[in-house]
Parts: sequence; structure tokens; C-alpha cells
Amino acid sequence: MADQRPVGIFDSGVGGLTVVKEFVRLLPQENVVYFGDTARVPYGPKSQETVIRFSIENILLLLRHRVKLIIIACNTASSVALSTVGENFRIPVLGVIQPGAQAAAAATRNRRIGVIGTRTTVKSRAYEEAIRRIAPGASVFSASCPLFVPLVEEGWLDTPVTVQIAADYLQPLRAEQIDTLVLGCTHYPLLKPVLQRVLGAEVVLVDSAQQVSLQAQAILEQECLLNDRAHPGQLQFFVSDEPDNFAAVGRQFLGFELGKVEKAGYV
Amino acid sequence: MADQRPVGIFDSGVGGLTVVKEFVRLLPQENVVYFGDTARVPYGPKSQETVIRFSIENILLLLRHRVKLIIIACNTASSVALSTVGENFRIPVLGVIQPGAQAAAAATRNRRIGVIGTRTTVKSRAYEEAIRRIAPGASVFSASCPLFVPLVEEGWLDTPVTVQIAADYLQPLRAEQIDTLVLGCTHYPLLKPVLQRVLGAEVVLVDSAQQVSLQAQAILEQECLLNDRAHPGQLQFFVSDEPDNFAAVGRQFLGFELGKVEKAGYV
Repeated sequence: MADQRPVGIFDSGVGGLTVVKEFVRLLPQENVVYFGDTARVPYGPKSQETVIRFSIENILLLLRHRVKLIIIACNTASSVALSTVGENFRIPVLGVIQPGAQAAAAATRNRRIGVIGTRTTVKSRAYEEAIRRIAPGASVFSASCPLFVPLVEEGWLDTPVTVQIAADYLQPLRAEQIDTLVLGCTHYPLLKPVLQRVLGAEVVLVDSAQQVSLQAQAILEQECLLNDRAHPGQLQFFVSDEPDNFAAVGRQFLGFELGKVEKAGYV
Repeated sequence: MADQRPVGIFDSGVGGLTVVKEFVRLLPQENVVYFGDTARVPYGPKSQETVIRFSIENILLLLRHRVKLIIIACNTASSVALSTVGENFRIPVLGVIQPGAQAAAAATRNRRIGVIGTRTTVKSRAYEEAIRRIAPGASVFSASCPLFVPLVEEGWLDTPVTVQIAADYLQPLRAEQIDTLVLGCTHYPLLKPVLQRVLGAEVVLVDSAQQVSLQAQAILEQECLLNDRAHPGQLQFFVSDEPDNFAAVGRQFLGFELGKVEKAGYV
């Protein structure tokens, strides 16, 4: 098997590179086309209708690169767009909600699970419904954390202000004695040290990036779409705003240099 | 004189309603068409090229409503787009930078002026250059405050976290002993109580909304474009994301109910 078509991954911005990082670690031989919609970022505070429209446009853009599978790395887009648009395409389209929900259901011991995300993700109740389908007896407690994305983008990953805001946002979840917390936004893994400190070491933090990569691997195997060439795949990065900033910030999320970033999109 | 064509005002989102508020107070008989680009908000972290492109699209959208004058209420768009695009249109296009700079130059006693804004506004040096043209001997000190917009949108107008962040951002400006601070973003007037407390009562806060309205009035008079009908003008509101949220948040900025908000735009 040597299906050399790339896998497409999109996000509202830079955060989805955490998914690229895990995907490439798992399947280094695959070619990847990444699109970050940096001209219209963030999606979190925007309406379902608008996020669905943007998601369809992003999928069409990736399809022009003849991708064989698409991962919606953005939690907001996954939570509102996947059920509406995912079935319409001939290639598999995966989101991060289902894999995150599975990991959370597997990790919890007291069946009390917290979910944090953007306002639109939390409002969609997508994680709650996915977790309850897998673990019907589980209690799910959600909190939207709109300031986390700007804090990460400002680089305030572990300042006193960040700790204070995290303590405020997480207080209701701590009161519910959750033992597992789903990081329902691609930016949040960068706040892991602070979140762990605020919640205590016994709370398991679930990050969807690894889970969705495992799901993608399983589907590529099942459908005979793997690229089993021995040499490493090519990574291509596209953004809708100017590429300069993206390369610099992207390094933090990806863990290595991105190389060339090109401009693309309809906006 | 009774030029009943509306005045067009645009912003990246809801913040420009502070300009509508001042404009309507000054010229209640004028018709106004407002456009908030809520599907692509914020402009502050985005590149000059992208903000210029969005601004041109917003101007074209307002021109379809046969406006007689346009106010760019967004500081970021004013700072990077006005000099590039303002001259291209047959109707006057005003930005908030020049009026804000004039007010700051008039207010300062020690000729040490601070400017706060988004990263793109500060990077453009538009306020610095405008102030130095008016008051060549003045010293201008700038600071970008990327967390202020999300704090305002979160409604955290006066929390301990807001005070702490304001203290951090303003510390370098306080050290320079500024006696005047330009609020170079339409969201910032909502933080006035905190900013005044952090800086001390003797520092003058300059808000461009009133200044740009006075400039618009002068131009409408000069060019015989005023609508001097006795009855109050009509206000029309358009946004590029779904209108529901906008009406609720907009009330805070405008000070009264918006009435109907419609969807518009090319995105």
C-alpha cells in the first residue's frame, strides 16, 4: 500500500499544529497539508452557522490538494460542523470530540468528568453528548474559558494572572469533584502545568490530539489508505492571513520548525 | 440642506458602537448605517495586508448603501488602511487616529503622551506619527494590550484580574510619567474606571469617539452634506456573523437598544 495523497488537517489558527505534531509522531511517512484560517481566527466566539460555513470552505480548500482524509483539529468546528458536513464528502472527515470523549470515559474512575472549551463548543454540548453515549452513567460538567486562547496567544502560559483566571474558571468543576478534565480546545494543552496545579495532580488531563491521530491511523489502515513508504512525508502549511507570524508562533505548538508557510484561502 | 443619505460607520465588531453613540448624540438627525465584521473579528492581531483588504471590502459594502461619508471606527483599520485606501473614494473617509492625536496633543501639559492599542495599531506607529506632526516636541510612549479586548468581551470590566493586567501593561507608561493616555481601541473606553485608577486621577484619558464625530460634523458642514431635517435619523445595523449576540452586547457600547440587526457581508 502506498497511497501518497496527503492527509488534510485544518484549524481556525495555529492551535491545530498540536494535532499535526501527534499525527506525524504516529505516522511519520504520511504527507500532510495543514490549513490555519488565521484571517478569521478565532472561531470560538462565533455562531454555529458561521463556523459551519467556514468549515465547509476549509474542507473544500483541502480537497483541492487531493487529500485522502481530513481531520478537523479545531474543537469548535468539530463540535458544530462535523455532524452537519462530515457525511457529505467521499473521504473520511474526523473531528476531535469523539476521540476526546472516549479517552475521558476510559480515564475517569469516579465517573465525574469536566470539559473546558470555547463558548460555542460548550454551548453545543457536543462533548457531553458524546461522553454520555459512551458512558451513560457519567456526570459531565462544562465550563467555557474564553480568556485562555488570548492568554496562550499572548504567551502568558504561567503568570500569576493566568493562575488566577484558571482558578476562577475551574472553581465550579473542582466543586463537582471531577477526576478527569477534557481540554476541549487546541490551545489549552499549552496551559497544562497551570491547569494541573490548580486542579491537583490526581486529576487526569485529556488532550484530543493524540486520540484523533490514533483514530485516523485506524481508519487509514481499515480503508487501505496508508502510505507505507519508508521515507518521511512532506508537510505543507497554508494560512489565510500573512504567513510570517504563523511560522514563529507555530514552532511552539509543533515542537519543530515549520519550514515554508504559504498563503491560501478565499477571504 | 437636507442630504438624507446615511453616514457609514464600520468596525471589526461591536466596539465601533461607541462612535455611533457619540455621533448620534452630536448629529441626531443623521441616518447611520453601521457594519460590524463580527465573522472576522478581531482585526488587532492580524496583518496589515489582511486588515487593508477587509477594510476595502467593508467600505464597498457601505457604499452599496449610498453613504455620503464613512468613519472607520476601528483603530487598527484606521491605523493601517486609511492612508492606503482613504483617498481612493469620492466620498470622505475618516479614521480615528488623527482626531485622537489632536485631542491628546491639546490635553497634555508635560508633552509626555501614552498610547495603548492592539499589536497591529501599535506596530503601525500611526498615533506616534500623527501626534509628532501636530506636536513635534512631544514624547510618545506606546504599549500594546492584547488582553484588553477579550477582557471587555468577557465582561470582566473591573475584576482583580483586570486591574492586575492593566497594572502590568501600563507600568512602562507610568514609569515614563505620561500625563495623557490615548485609548487607541474602541473597546478600551469600557475599562476607563480601572485605567484611571491604575494611572491616577491626574492622567487624562483620550477617547477618539467624540473627536472623530466632531471632525465628521465639520466635514459634513463644509461640504454641504448635512441632513438638517428636524426628526431623528434612522440607525441601521449590519454584521457578518449571526446578529443575535451582537444586539445584546451592543447595548453596553451604545447605551440604548439597537433595534433590528441584520446579517450582511461577503464572508
